[in-house]
Amino acid sequence: MKAALAIDFGGTKTIVGIVREDGQLLAQRRFATDTSQGALPYFQACLNELGECMRESHVPPEQIAGIGVTVPGLADPVRGMLLHAPFLGLKEVPVAATIRSLWPDYPVFVDNDVNACALAEMKFGGALACGSFVWVTVSTGIGGAVVIDGKVWEGEHHLAGELGHIVVEWDDDANVCGCGNCGCLEVHGSGKAIERNVRRYLAGSGRDSELAAYFARTNAPVTAESAAAAAMAGIEAAAYIFRQAGRHIGKMLSYTVNMLNPAAVFIGGGVSRSFSLLQPGIMDTFSVAVIGEANKSVPILPTGLGYEAGLLGAASLAFTK
Amino acid sequence: MKAALAIDFGGTKTIVGIVREDGQLLAQRRFATDTSQGALPYFQACLNELGECMRESHVPPEQIAGIGVTVPGLADPVRGMLLHAPFLGLKEVPVAATIRSLWPDYPVFVDNDVNACALAEMKFGGALACGSFVWVTVSTGIGGAVVIDGKVWEGEHHLAGELGHIVVEWDDDANVCGCGNCGCLEVHGSGKAIERNVRRYLAGSGRDSELAAYFARTNAPVTAESAAAAAMAGIEAAAYIFRQAGRHIGKMLSYTVNMLNPAAVFIGGGVSRSFSLLQPGIMDTFSVAVIGEANKSVPILPTGLGYEAGLLGAASLAFTK
Repeated sequence: MKAALAIDFGGTKTIVGIVREDGQLLAQRRFATDTSQGALPYFQACLNELGECMRESHVPPEQIAGIGVTVPGLADPVRGMLLHAPFLGLKEVPVAATIRSLWPDYPVFVDNDVNACALAEMKFGGALACGSFVWVTVSTGIGGAVVIDGKVWEGEHHLAGELGHIVVEWDDDANVCGCGNCGCLEVHGSGKAIERNVRRYLAGSGRDSELAAYFARTNAPVTAESAAAAAMAGIEAAAYIFRQAGRHIGKMLSYTVNMLNPAAVFIGGGVSRSFSLLQPGIMDTFSVAVIGEANKSVPILPTGLGYEAGLLGAASLAFTK
Repeated sequence: MKAALAIDFGGTKTIVGIVREDGQLLAQRRFATDTSQGALPYFQACLNELGECMRESHVPPEQIAGIGVTVPGLADPVRGMLLHAPFLGLKEVPVAATIRSLWPDYPVFVDNDVNACALAEMKFGGALACGSFVWVTVSTGIGGAVVIDGKVWEGEHHLAGELGHIVVEWDDDANVCGCGNCGCLEVHGSGKAIERNVRRYLAGSGRDSELAAYFARTNAPVTAESAAAAAMAGIEAAAYIFRQAGRHIGKMLSYTVNMLNPAAVFIGGGVSRSFSLLQPGIMDTFSVAVIGEANKSVPILPTGLGYEAGLLGAASLAFTK
């Protein structure tokens, strides 16, 4: 059975590993992303770790289909380039060419992490039978991918799927998004937004609330993750903040579904582990804003990929292209 | 050169004609749509008129590529069916089978009018070099079509492109759309919406306005078309109503462009003849709500098809499929 070498090049951490064509993860390594010395030493480090993984998993070189790399930003899959990763301050990195110069044995495939997750959902997740679907990553930020006829639609300039920058609050000019616009979904439905809204609540009307007592008692940092734990423990103010975030996600999903009539929507990313907290809000807005029975019943599902979504995504690039 | 027999089956009027592959219209006939006796006599009447057109234009039968039919509602192009035309009260009409039973000489192609216009824009209009684009019909209502990789994306249940039912006003529950939802673009950006807003203005704060005087003087009926004439004559209240409609259209376009990063947007339909009145409003909202230079500069253009868009659309079905 074929296997792929996978590099999940993240903003803060990198995971490399070997993934078999049936989705089995044979070996993996995690380390902090360090591009401070440039792309060449960074990818050299990735390949060194992958070499270790190959020795450890005893996968013979002739079974390797290729090297798949997901990058934390705008990618050009045709040229194998990372075009722009604002968080890391990188521009125009020739990812495929750099890797080939170090390890010329295998074809190299590059795409952004969100598109790769959508591919992985088709290859290994819940979208096996879906010709078309929408993928949404709800994490610190929000990204998306549109799959049409079994292919990720990249757009004319690799800019398709910017679902996090669809405006969901036209009258909001107080919360400026990283993109410079106001009212983007990323500002209202992301992990960052949930965290901000929890902080605002605790600093304002929720100063003496059950939620404030929860944070004081558990000594947990104020994050979307700890707010989810509070909501799961029955604290309503935390559940309300997730429901509000879900309502904004539901608005965006109503737009995509009315436009594309896809077979399904899959939601991944860290915040999707709290899918049950987002879902009521998603349905509040989605169900009143789509047209046609077929669209109203489009399933909106948490990803079937689990924790290794990014690595499976990187591997999918080598299996699919 | 090949030619197509085209039937533009509209809600109130029908146009049939012969269109050459270069877009030249060789002959046409218009008549009121009458389906009161059922589909068979209606299509018999269409074919009789097309027979006249063939005699008039001297097109030899062997040059006919096929018969293209656009229908005013939900269509299933694969089965050649009109699934639902609410305005005419028709459901599950076997359009292709009926026509073939009457005139078995040519293949028959069926699609809804909006998808067909998008095809015509590719074949005869401004989208010749566009692999992907969004088509919007702004007429009494609002319809849309999404073209990806040179093909109209129909969706999983022929429900894609419902751009008129994307919600643009989440807090509006006063204006119920024909679809049963509230706040749809069709309620805020269509010809019907423009007409309603002109009537409200004339019945309220605009009772003694310049616009009221214009209607009194010209004795024109209160329609979107006459309001456009008033706006072109310099009456600001009328221009403002078009600009507001444009703002709502621009919201929807920002969603579609952030999602699909298409090469262009084309706007057709009766109200698009007043494109210059809509454009300032479209840019008000669009330009602050899309991400990336490439998306900000996606051209938003009036259709290049002119008055015969529907007939050219019907003909395109026979040339493209």
